[in-house]
Amino acid sequence: MESNPTAAVIIIGNEILSGRTNDQNITYLAKRLTELGIKLQQAIIIPDVTETIINTVRACQKNYTYVFTTGGIGPTHDDITADAIAKALRAPLTVHPEAKQILINYYGKEHLNESRLKMAFIPLGATLIANPVSAAPGFYLQNVYVMAGVPEIMRAMFDKIAASLQPGATIFSETVHSLLGESILAKELGLIQARYPEIDIGSYPYFKNRSFGLSLVLRGTDAAKIALALADVIALVKEKGGNPILENHQEMLGTNAG
Amino acid sequence: MESNPTAAVIIIGNEILSGRTNDQNITYLAKRLTELGIKLQQAIIIPDVTETIINTVRACQKNYTYVFTTGGIGPTHDDITADAIAKALRAPLTVHPEAKQILINYYGKEHLNESRLKMAFIPLGATLIANPVSAAPGFYLQNVYVMAGVPEIMRAMFDKIAASLQPGATIFSETVHSLLGESILAKELGLIQARYPEIDIGSYPYFKNRSFGLSLVLRGTDAAKIALALADVIALVKEKGGNPILENHQEMLGTNAG
Repeated sequence: MESNPTAAVIIIGNEILSGRTNDQNITYLAKRLTELGIKLQQAIIIPDVTETIINTVRACQKNYTYVFTTGGIGPTHDDITADAIAKALRAPLTVHPEAKQILINYYGKEHLNESRLKMAFIPLGATLIANPVSAAPGFYLQNVYVMAGVPEIMRAMFDKIAASLQPGATIFSETVHSLLGESILAKELGLIQARYPEIDIGSYPYFKNRSFGLSLVLRGTDAAKIALALADVIALVKEKGGNPILENHQEMLGTNAG
Repeated sequence: MESNPTAAVIIIGNEILSGRTNDQNITYLAKRLTELGIKLQQAIIIPDVTETIINTVRACQKNYTYVFTTGGIGPTHDDITADAIAKALRAPLTVHPEAKQILINYYGKEHLNESRLKMAFIPLGATLIANPVSAAPGFYLQNVYVMAGVPEIMRAMFDKIAASLQPGATIFSETVHSLLGESILAKELGLIQARYPEIDIGSYPYFKNRSFGLSLVLRGTDAAKIALALADVIALVKEKGGNPILENHQEMLGTNAG
């Protein structure tokens, strides 16, 4: 996966840092980007503070192929994202004629008050991202994509840009569940990982119905290597007395007696 | 809230960046910290990469009163957090006698294999955080608190340390709901914010049952100022023809006719 494009997600919003709102955008973007073969390398939630947005965007822009922000592009005083992005990218913030026309069409010319017009201020040179839900557009400039924070709008905006992103090699994933404790197979699992350095093997215990389960996840762009490693992992789970179950396959691959 | 202690949360886990797992720890910690008067200023999700963990922990440690990490302290090859934290804080990673005893008590001396013993390797000088769910402890050193990623264990660990954190002034919050579009009251809301610079006023549109609603959130440590600003916000919503409803109060504060 070394050569896949990379991405950072920046969630701008005090309401998430206070615990008031449960972010839904990170998981959504993580899934969509993974489907495109784009590796999400960082997701960060920051407050509505101009300086923080500028520093975070600049750091991410340098380090990743794509940067996606959500939140802070509405009409109120706490919507400072467009202004902060303009500063981060050193582009003047000006009225975008097409954005203004979109707002006129949506609200009616006589109702385009100062607050609504604020949503037409876009960094110079940016391309608009259409908003089929509530009109006010997002935008992208260089490798920074600026979207709304409301999940329904963000998703609609991402749909508009997804096809224009440079996809990477398909990232395949296989998951084996069992009820084994991970310390029982940790050593041998590490040996399997060492044999297949091209793929990532993750071990994720979880707690459900008052008992622990274990998901072993294999991920990478080389389907053949994943299949080989998968066979080894399944054999390991059986050897340790576990009952390996392939996620999405839902069939029993063995018995507890191995 | 300027003088309140601050915090950063670092979620260590490829499984969240791939979209496979929906993080639950950020929202939980955000709520608990807010209750303690500790301002969460950043939450970041990073991959299981030693260098990334080191750089992120060092940057956060400098900038915030507290740093909380979750994930990567189990027995498998992808559990690299304790080692990375030791490097970040320049403390040698050694067997912690108390941690080893905890593991012996839990697994039995004859079953303390190499993988399980790995969970007793803790940066020198760190204090253990008890794990009442599955024994293997977390730890803290300097201002960095290292907890498990499994939400049930993380919560139990946070319960063990919460009382030892320096609480800040109580952060009060009031929320007014209405069905108004935010662009209708954006200008006047900005004027209210300007009159009360000590408090944060956030405007959060949401989408529910196919229509938009609006939450106006007032937050700060000065209860009297919040009450005054709240009265102004309620009056504004009524003036604009909205029907303000106070969250957690659940009573109608006016009619749509204002």
